[in-house]
Amino acid sequence: MATKAYINGQIGNWDEMMIPLSDRSVFFGDAVYDAVLVLGGKPFAMDLHLDRLYNSCALTDIMFSMPREQLMGEIGRLLAVSEGDAHMLYLQVTRGAAPRKHEYPEGVAPNLIMFAKPISLTPKDKRVKLISMQDLRYEYCHIKTTNLLPNVFASEKATRAGADEVLWHRDGRVTEAAHSSILMIKDGAVIMPPLDHLVLPGITRKVMHNLCDQNGIGVEVREFTVDEVMQADEIILCSTTKNILYVSEIDGIAVGGKDRELAQRLQELFLDEVYAQTGVRI
Amino acid sequence: MATKAYINGQIGNWDEMMIPLSDRSVFFGDAVYDAVLVLGGKPFAMDLHLDRLYNSCALTDIMFSMPREQLMGEIGRLLAVSEGDAHMLYLQVTRGAAPRKHEYPEGVAPNLIMFAKPISLTPKDKRVKLISMQDLRYEYCHIKTTNLLPNVFASEKATRAGADEVLWHRDGRVTEAAHSSILMIKDGAVIMPPLDHLVLPGITRKVMHNLCDQNGIGVEVREFTVDEVMQADEIILCSTTKNILYVSEIDGIAVGGKDRELAQRLQELFLDEVYAQTGVRI
Repeated sequence: MATKAYINGQIGNWDEMMIPLSDRSVFFGDAVYDAVLVLGGKPFAMDLHLDRLYNSCALTDIMFSMPREQLMGEIGRLLAVSEGDAHMLYLQVTRGAAPRKHEYPEGVAPNLIMFAKPISLTPKDKRVKLISMQDLRYEYCHIKTTNLLPNVFASEKATRAGADEVLWHRDGRVTEAAHSSILMIKDGAVIMPPLDHLVLPGITRKVMHNLCDQNGIGVEVREFTVDEVMQADEIILCSTTKNILYVSEIDGIAVGGKDRELAQRLQELFLDEVYAQTGVRI
Repeated sequence: MATKAYINGQIGNWDEMMIPLSDRSVFFGDAVYDAVLVLGGKPFAMDLHLDRLYNSCALTDIMFSMPREQLMGEIGRLLAVSEGDAHMLYLQVTRGAAPRKHEYPEGVAPNLIMFAKPISLTPKDKRVKLISMQDLRYEYCHIKTTNLLPNVFASEKATRAGADEVLWHRDGRVTEAAHSSILMIKDGAVIMPPLDHLVLPGITRKVMHNLCDQNGIGVEVREFTVDEVMQADEIILCSTTKNILYVSEIDGIAVGGKDRELAQRLQELFLDEVYAQTGVRI
């Protein structure tokens, strides 16, 4: 199935679409983005993703003025021509096209890029392997920008090591993974790292947090170390396309598996919420 | 005068050229680049820039296999159709076009993008104003990649403050500026920050270092602080298009001006070298 893409109102096949060389995403990575799980044509947690996308624009001074209802209409047009049952809907807003100069250009409109990529859903009983590594990213990690080269390096390193993802830390303090959030379970509570400038506010994590609150499951938001993760009862990876998965191994050492009951309950609560919003049971 | 651009052998007007949406520079900033001063059609320090560009490819595993002689031939084609006396020649090598996935794609050839932008030369007696700020970039600053959003933010902040550039520091330790290197003169010696993963190996700085060595001017490579810069005899900004300029003000406070003789000698040595290589006297 072909991936359909969208650029400023024009829709076509992903691999045939072109953008202006002068778009600032090409020379500066001067763009923000978001990614949404779409099942049976229905986006999951759409409002939260749009909140984050508009907030990313605000944090980077990208003057994206398209109203939310209009954007939803454009997304609808793209999804209407996209074949398949499961997609990653990708949205990118760039600062616009202009002669290359670091400072913001004047009088330039942002460009809106989207695509809907057909995906295979990851089985919910998949166990995830991580490798730990120093987080060398910049200190704007709370903004979802396309300055992703450190994430590319980390993902490649994990793949070459036969792992699925990285466990990033800053001198021991756990931040997140290269395209996922990291949570852990200890003594019956779910522990999440604080959302400062070193951690992306993950939507899957946020939904999980809300579900815990609604179901009387304790959540602690606090810093924790790689050593604590190694000793945790369970370690959970959250991401938009993979939802909630358990970690079974870090740096070749078996981890987690000590509170399967709560881990499974979290996954079930999450997948029930996906079902409630999309009508699709994973 | 129109800026001429080049993409994989094709040459055209900069503002009419298009690149594939699927190029990895668009979604990940997965690209390296370099920029060269060209005067009267002659590039300055071309070999050093090409050394750095090929090294940036090696450091990012971008498999750019075009031999240097062939690349020089392509640059010659671009310069031959570029009008004007002074240009910034920009070269970018991207990892290539592929479906969006963090890991390196297989079997994909890098894309070569270039343009020659007509520039006005900055008068050599211009005095530069800086504002100091915390350096929040990633720890791959020794590689010249297009993950430049922190540099965009910093340049915009400087412009809004009525300054020309930033003085970046990590908790006091000076690194560089948003698109320039920082040197200082103290007690008759030229002091440069160490070239580790926090500092780009600037070509103008390297040429200056060589000229100091050849002319018996002492160079110390060591860490230094913002406080030391404020008290320095002279502060020098080095960049590809602006060459060697003196700093007169940091955060609104007058600085430098205490060893104009050595500062002028450095600038003259550098501009003599530019003249020797290009035949153009700035």
